[in-house]
This record gives sequence, structure tokens and C-alpha cells, in this order.
Amino acid sequence: MDQPYDPACTYSERARLLTSSAIREILKITERPDIISFAGGLPSPDGFPVDVVRAAYDKVLSTQGRSALQYGPTEGYGPLRAWVAEDLSRQGARVGPDNILILSGSQQGLDLLGKVLIDPGSKVLVETPSYLGALQSFSLYQPRYVSVPSDAGGLQPESLTPALAQGGRFLYALPNFQNPTGRTLDRQRRNALVEATARLNLPLVEDDPYGELRYAGEPQPGLLALGQEAGANVIRMGSFSKVLAPGLRLGYLAAAPSLINKLVQAKQATDLHTATLTQMAVHEIVKDGFLAGHLPAVRELYRQQCTHMLDAMSQHFPQTVRWDTPEGGMFIWVTLPAHIDSTRLLEQAVARGVAFVPGAPFYAGDPQHNTLRLSFVTVSEARIREGVRILGELISAYPQA
Amino acid sequence: MDQPYDPACTYSERARLLTSSAIREILKITERPDIISFAGGLPSPDGFPVDVVRAAYDKVLSTQGRSALQYGPTEGYGPLRAWVAEDLSRQGARVGPDNILILSGSQQGLDLLGKVLIDPGSKVLVETPSYLGALQSFSLYQPRYVSVPSDAGGLQPESLTPALAQGGRFLYALPNFQNPTGRTLDRQRRNALVEATARLNLPLVEDDPYGELRYAGEPQPGLLALGQEAGANVIRMGSFSKVLAPGLRLGYLAAAPSLINKLVQAKQATDLHTATLTQMAVHEIVKDGFLAGHLPAVRELYRQQCTHMLDAMSQHFPQTVRWDTPEGGMFIWVTLPAHIDSTRLLEQAVARGVAFVPGAPFYAGDPQHNTLRLSFVTVSEARIREGVRILGELISAYPQA
Repeated sequence: MDQPYDPACTYSERARLLTSSAIREILKITERPDIISFAGGLPSPDGFPVDVVRAAYDKVLSTQGRSALQYGPTEGYGPLRAWVAEDLSRQGARVGPDNILILSGSQQGLDLLGKVLIDPGSKVLVETPSYLGALQSFSLYQPRYVSVPSDAGGLQPESLTPALAQGGRFLYALPNFQNPTGRTLDRQRRNALVEATARLNLPLVEDDPYGELRYAGEPQPGLLALGQEAGANVIRMGSFSKVLAPGLRLGYLAAAPSLINKLVQAKQATDLHTATLTQMAVHEIVKDGFLAGHLPAVRELYRQQCTHMLDAMSQHFPQTVRWDTPEGGMFIWVTLPAHIDSTRLLEQAVARGVAFVPGAPFYAGDPQHNTLRLSFVTVSEARIREGVRILGELISAYPQA
Repeated sequence: MDQPYDPACTYSERARLLTSSAIREILKITERPDIISFAGGLPSPDGFPVDVVRAAYDKVLSTQGRSALQYGPTEGYGPLRAWVAEDLSRQGARVGPDNILILSGSQQGLDLLGKVLIDPGSKVLVETPSYLGALQSFSLYQPRYVSVPSDAGGLQPESLTPALAQGGRFLYALPNFQNPTGRTLDRQRRNALVEATARLNLPLVEDDPYGELRYAGEPQPGLLALGQEAGANVIRMGSFSKVLAPGLRLGYLAAAPSLINKLVQAKQATDLHTATLTQMAVHEIVKDGFLAGHLPAVRELYRQQCTHMLDAMSQHFPQTVRWDTPEGGMFIWVTLPAHIDSTRLLEQAVARGVAFVPGAPFYAGDPQHNTLRLSFVTVSEARIREGVRILGELISAYPQA
């Protein structure tokens, strides 16, 4: 048989760092409908306001079709930038539209930050563990990672010593229902964090895709608002993926005007601008307060799913297994007995029709191989219980070291 | 008055290369409705099939709303990849869906190619002049540009010597109605180009956003199809911006599977994937042959606009001015007498209410300061004639060196 025509290129050094994401490869297997997948980071489509989205696209195309289909400014659609600025202001931050850059999904913000802030060898501080997608984005710009210790309360601000922060381009943190741990910073740690980064002159990237998905505990102020009071340089990223729908690919970044200006120039070279139609339709949806009415149902859905999983874990996991109880978001982080390698466990689990994400790839430094991430949002209660039962069996039967 | 809060970051070396695009700055001025702007690269909204787009979004959201709003694969929506592969196959290329990566606008392809193919100092060959947006994208990866000479027939393949090509990561070319010159390669040059790049083992990037906008002359085969016969490594980029609407931000790249694989990994780190809803709606529009019925009207519109401008130029420009007559696309490239600096001419023109883009920023090497680009597609006939008349006056009155 003919080989497919596949002429070679000379790749950049950067490209040689690229390897397919472990998560993506697992997701490919777990797309099989017979697999009970706790691996996904997908929000529940039960939370997508399909009819509202449909009506918004229809209205925008009926009334402003020619503008919606034309090129637009790189910074973003003016009314949407203004809406984001007002929304953040309601949460206590002092920002105007000039502080806002609209993104083609908040993942794009990670790439743009890498582009304008990271040189090969630059120090970048990350949580332990951290969001895999951020590590992948930043890694293309060849930083030197420094892992900031965490515990069940999230990142430990007292570990931010001058020696650790010295020369750091930024600290990347997810304060709410972190991916992968589900952990949330309390008020005391938030204050300590913004004070430390202000004192150390260390820019602080606050990635907050899940903040609106709180279903337990007390709401906490955002790091941008707290940081402005403390004199910290906070760069905030937000997303419409979890409050509306991820398939729209829409997010934003809020930062100092000089940084926004650099990011706009980088974005212009990257994708010119985010789709005008998408921005206008989402503005049409959110401008009159739709989210305030919509989010309670999404939160309740996620709370129930989380409760089902925690309940099943209590029932089926051996007592040697520990986990954090999230106050919101999509993930539960599980710590197995030290002798269990969750990547080997995954192989056994997939053979039994269950999938999850092993913890190791979320560590920029030395991984803890006995950790894993469970997502509970897209699986039915019955399948959650069945999948957790199987995992419990496999954990109990895992050979001793 | 309070200074705005604007804390500083340490920027990457790359970020220090970023400066606002001359074109963008000019476009900001020329957004004033009183300006007759020949500066834009915007397609005419008269060519946007607004109702068809509206019906497609409505159908997709009515029938497949939950999938359309969910995350999707980085490679792109399967049926759209298949459609692009079939469309290219009809044009003579041998490609399947695995050769196709869907992009968030074809500009993204330039960034991704820079990411995976350019190291600092890598040689990249470009036309003289070349598309400014490509130079901006590639420049962030710090290549060393080598300018390939052009004349009225476009790039001169005979200038591709082994010494010029040696170590080049790729040659970037726009074979149809080039931006900025409007020039098109004839069949003989196309053959010579793919044969030379095959012989020199030099990957050839074919950027073809305007290919469907031919309104004069004979259609020419694409470089991908010709290159496959000649054993060349051709990477083709296409766009839905000029055949449907740019505000959707949708394009594609066709290449060898191994390169597609690297680009997919880079895209995953860059924006995860292109909006699912956009891809499904555009597939809904194009799948039953809509473009074949739609494009003749767009071509006729562009032909008329071009004719008005060429006619006005013949009438009002002094005999010392030369220009190329395009066979399609959006641009006319003008060469003024050698003593005229088109950037200074622009200042005078804006004062008289007319704008265009000076030629200098389109050159990777030494610019020709007596060149400029005129776009004719979004301006009414009366304003084309008025704007060209004013330019003619200013050119005639320009002080001798």
C-alpha cells in the first residue's frame, strides 16, 4: 500500500517540546459512550441556555448583521468590554473598558501572557498542582517553573519568600475551585497572597473560570479587587465557557492599560480579533442581567452532581483514600495511598469501563503519582455511583508495594 | 487628576518587538465616516449573505444546540474538515480530512506556523512586498527574512537559488491577487515555483484568501495541487473571510499529516479549538454548494468596484504614476514617481479627507517609499472618483525632490 504523502519540515525547538496532552489522549478513549468518564473538563450541556443563545444570534443577525459579520477591533466589541468592566466593578474592582481585552476563550489569555511576559529561562511561579492547559501554554515559551506549595486550603502565601519570587515574571493561580484540586483560597490567604505579591513586586495572574459556580461556603472577593487595594499587579482572566457555553470560545482578560496594550498587539498578530458575531450575541445575552437568573440553576445542578459523587466515594472508597470537598466548580481531587500509581490505576479502570485523569501531569515539578482528578458534571447519578464503585474495588485490590 | 493605576511588568524580548501596526493606526483615523478610505482590507458587507448565515445558526442551534455549544476537538469539526478536503480535491489536490486543521481565521495559521517552524534567526523567505499581517505574526518568532524579488507578474521563481533557499524554514507566498500588490502568478511561474521549492527541499506556504475572487483572466491551479505533482511540500491556508464573512473568524490549513499533528498540539495550547458553533453553522451553509451560487455576485461586485477605481486613476493620476491591473481580489498597487514618499503623501491626503496604506510596511527588507496600496471594495463609485481625484491633485502638486 502507498504511504501517505508526508514531507518533512524542520521544526522549531519550541515544537520539539510539544507532545500530545495526556488528557487529550485519554479523552479520545473516553469519548466511547460505554465509558463512564470522570476524566472530562466539560461543563454539563444541561446548563447550556440553548434557546437564549439561539434568540440572541437571531436578534443580532436580524438587526446588525452587516456589522456582526465584519472585521472588528482587536481589543474586542466595545459594549462587551464595557459590560465586563461593569461586572468586575460590581465585584469591587476599579476597572474601565480600557482595562479589558476580549479573548477567543480564556486559554488564549495564557498564550498571550506567555508571548509577552516569558523569555526562555524566565521564572514563572505556579501552584502545586496547577492547571495542565496553562502549563502547556506557558511551556511553549520555555519558562523555568517554580512550584509554590499548596495544602487543602490551596496555595500557601507564606511560602512566597523574596528568594522564591526574585525575578519571577508572574505567579499563576486559580483562587476558586482550582483545576485540578477543586480547592479555594479563604479570605485570610487571599489577603496574604495579594499583600505578598505587592511587597515582592510580583505580577499575579488570577485565572477564574469557575468563580460563578459556587454552591457551598461563603463567596470570597476576587484577587483583582483585593489586589488593587493592596497595590498588587493583578491580571485577571475570566471565561464565558462555564457560565454560558464553552463552544462559543469567549473569555476576557483584565489588566493594567500598558499590559493590555501589549497584549492587543500580540493578539493582532495571533488571530486579528475574536469573532464579532460571537461577541455581539453574548453581549445581547448578558447585557440585561440574564446570568443572575441563569446561574442558580447551573449551581444547583453542579451541587447535586458533586453530592452524588462525594456520597458514592464515602460509600465505596477504602478509608485510606483522602479527598477535598469542593465549595464549587467541577472537580474532586483524590489522594490515594502512597503505593498506588494513578496512571497504572487508570489502565485498570479503562479496562473496566471507567476513566479519570491521573494527577501527575498537573505538577510542574515532582509529581505525586498517587493523586487523581475526578470530574462529576456530565455523568448521570447512576453512572457516578457505578463508576465510583468500580474505582473503589480497583483501589482496594491494588497490589501492595 | 489621578493617574490611572498602571503597574509595570517585565516584558519578554519578543514583546519589545511588538509595536502597533501602521495599518491599524491609520484605520483608527479612517473609521471617521467623513474620510474616503482606500486603506481598509475589509471586504464589502454588500457581499455578506446575512440571511443565509442567520438561517444556518438558527438551524444548528435548533437541531444540535447542545453539541454546538460544547467543547470540540482541536483539529476542528469533522464534517467541516471533510468538506474542506473535498473542496480542495475538486481543485486537484490529493488531501483527506487528516490533512486539514480548522483555524480561528487564517491569520491564526501564520501564528501557528511561526510557533512550530521558526526559531530566533531562522531564515524565512517572503515576497517583495508581502502581507503585513504575516510579517507581524512571523516576526514574534524572530526569523531572519530573505526577500524574494517580484515584478508585475509576482514572485520570480528563477531567483530561488540554492544559496537563497539554503536553510530556509519556508517560503511564504500569496499566488492570487496578492496583498498588497494584487498580482497573480501565471501558470508558468507556478510550475517553476513548485519545481524550484521541490528541488530545494523548501516548504512552500500558499496563502490564498482571495483565490475565489477572480473576475478577470484565466483561473490557475493552486500551488498545493501543482506542488503534489512536483513533489513539493506545500502548506495551504484558506479563509472563509472573503467568501462568506470575516467577522466569523474561520479559516483552514492543509498540510502533511505530521505537520498538522504538530500544529494541532500548538493550537491546543493557543486557543483549545475554534468555536464549535461557528464551524457547524459554516458547514451548514457550505455543505450543499451555497458558495457556487453566491460567489458570482461577489465577484461581479468586486469587478465593478475595481473598474471604477482603475477608470478614475486613468482619468486623474498623472502619467508618471504606474499601477498593476488586478485579475481579482481587493487591491491595486501604485508606484509613484521616485521622489514621492507615500507616507508624507498620506499625511496630506488625510488632511484632504482621503486615506490609503503606504507601501513601506509591506517590505521585509528595504522598502520602496514611492509605493502605496489602494483598496476599492467598500467605497461607493462617487467617493472612489472623488478620492482618486484628490490623490491625483496631491501627486501632481507634490514638490520635486
